Amino acid sequence: MSIIVLGTVALDSVKTPFGIRKDMLGGSAVHFGMSARLFTDVNLVAVIGKDFPQRHIDFLKEKKIILTSLIMKEGKTFRWKGEYRGDLNTAVTLNTQLGVLSTFRPAISESQRKIKHIFLANVDPDIQRYLLQRMHSPALVGLDSMNYWINNKRSSLMSLLKQVTIYVANDQEARLLSCENNLIKAAKFLYRHGPKMVLIKKGEHGALFFSKEFIFSMPAFPTDKVTDPTGAGDTFAGGFMGYLSKVKKLNEENIKRALAYGTIAASFNIEDFGVDKTANLTMRDLENRLYKFRKCVL
Amino acid sequence: MSIIVLGTVALDSVKTPFGIRKDMLGGSAVHFGMSARLFTDVNLVAVIGKDFPQRHIDFLKEKKIILTSLIMKEGKTFRWKGEYRGDLNTAVTLNTQLGVLSTFRPAISESQRKIKHIFLANVDPDIQRYLLQRMHSPALVGLDSMNYWINNKRSSLMSLLKQVTIYVANDQEARLLSCENNLIKAAKFLYRHGPKMVLIKKGEHGALFFSKEFIFSMPAFPTDKVTDPTGAGDTFAGGFMGYLSKVKKLNEENIKRALAYGTIAASFNIEDFGVDKTANLTMRDLENRLYKFRKCVL
Repeated sequence: MSIIVLGTVALDSVKTPFGIRKDMLGGSAVHFGMSARLFTDVNLVAVIGKDFPQRHIDFLKEKKIILTSLIMKEGKTFRWKGEYRGDLNTAVTLNTQLGVLSTFRPAISESQRKIKHIFLANVDPDIQRYLLQRMHSPALVGLDSMNYWINNKRSSLMSLLKQVTIYVANDQEARLLSCENNLIKAAKFLYRHGPKMVLIKKGEHGALFFSKEFIFSMPAFPTDKVTDPTGAGDTFAGGFMGYLSKVKKLNEENIKRALAYGTIAASFNIEDFGVDKTANLTMRDLENRLYKFRKCVL
Repeated sequence: MSIIVLGTVALDSVKTPFGIRKDMLGGSAVHFGMSARLFTDVNLVAVIGKDFPQRHIDFLKEKKIILTSLIMKEGKTFRWKGEYRGDLNTAVTLNTQLGVLSTFRPAISESQRKIKHIFLANVDPDIQRYLLQRMHSPALVGLDSMNYWINNKRSSLMSLLKQVTIYVANDQEARLLSCENNLIKAAKFLYRHGPKMVLIKKGEHGALFFSKEFIFSMPAFPTDKVTDPTGAGDTFAGGFMGYLSKVKKLNEENIKRALAYGTIAASFNIEDFGVDKTANLTMRDLENRLYKFRKCVL
């Protein structure tokens, strides 16, 4: 089994109360891949510029991420610069340079078109649709987005909702897209517009899952070791989708377990800058913490 | 078994997106009592003014709240006026009139001094200490406070922490008192300063429990029926302390169950204005929703 993830490969510059890092390997597809790879083969669909360091490519290869559809184009790699203050719950974006991302068109191989499990991480919804249309037989499709697209391409995003299995959003995005403050109302609104499942990520407050069959609320792993939350949401999605791509049925038990894997994967991500922690993560680490987590929430 | 609660009996005026209410029965001791009464006899220690409506007294009596130590004094009842907007997570205080509360000294009967279970709801920490010193054999002491006392009577509150079993705070208060943004760090700080247990209430995000033996994170009951959150924290504390006052051991199992009762009691409180919902709550209602809750979080 394998999964295909469309998203960004970025160079992130981050400031948190615990330090400053410049041009780290980041991006939604990379963070997703760091946790999903523990469950399945990850096919990355993204674009980088000519300035992208070879060592990052070597690193991704070493982590067994399949880079067939990682395109290198003339120009600069997508860069994000942000800062976290106080409780580290919200990033302040200081600068965004789209670079080669602004003209990105995904190109995938014929064999990749047959992959059944797809995650459309945060990029322009028109690009997400473009990729999805190329897939032969989507079975499980996850969709993520962000405030920028909700504000600027709402109708494109809303129509894309109808074509996906699960819409993944953070609490702010869910509220913004649904115009509902209460998260259950927000989840119901989003559910009515297409996806079979809605997953709302709430950072340190955990995650809320909504489907016709059941609602589920899972707290985050309680930790005081928060260094850099960048990519936590994508890492969560990677664990969640990675696990679901391996199971036969999308039933309650499997979904709860997938949520737990997502939660645990994200709890590792925030402990260090960028992918510093998740790069060396093993299934054994996940299982060990999952055991501790169960004692904290069950 | 019985419990004694020191706190406020108030006339609350509240505006939420769902309506406006004026001079409703409210106050920390009242909201606490509405849920604690389902588990044990509740002795209320508070003060009201001559303007306090007789119908509210009749109502409290009807609910079997023991009013022996509810003092009526010359002057006006404590009044709070507030508004909730948006996601209803935070109240904006528009007006506070202390009235008779400003000169309140609790007076309790000799038989009440023997009560072993005590909840010091939010009033001046000096008054909380005054009552606690009068108790003959405290076995389980809960303490709540608020931003105002944390800012203005910090040292009094900190010394009181050493005398209580469990300190109950909302996330803002825990951060303010500990000067820690991370809630686990905040809980650890508070724990180091005296109480055996720390309970941090996070509103719609649930509650975090901290002790030497274990950390526990419980989500809120997922609901889209939020009308007025006033008193939710006290209702939580009432369910939590009420259940604990009945059990023999403060072990992990009982504490988790107490947290669940607090969570469920609070989920009813927010569904209607003031005590409109909790006034008619039965143990059966709690148990039924607890059953649903377990399916949403386990």
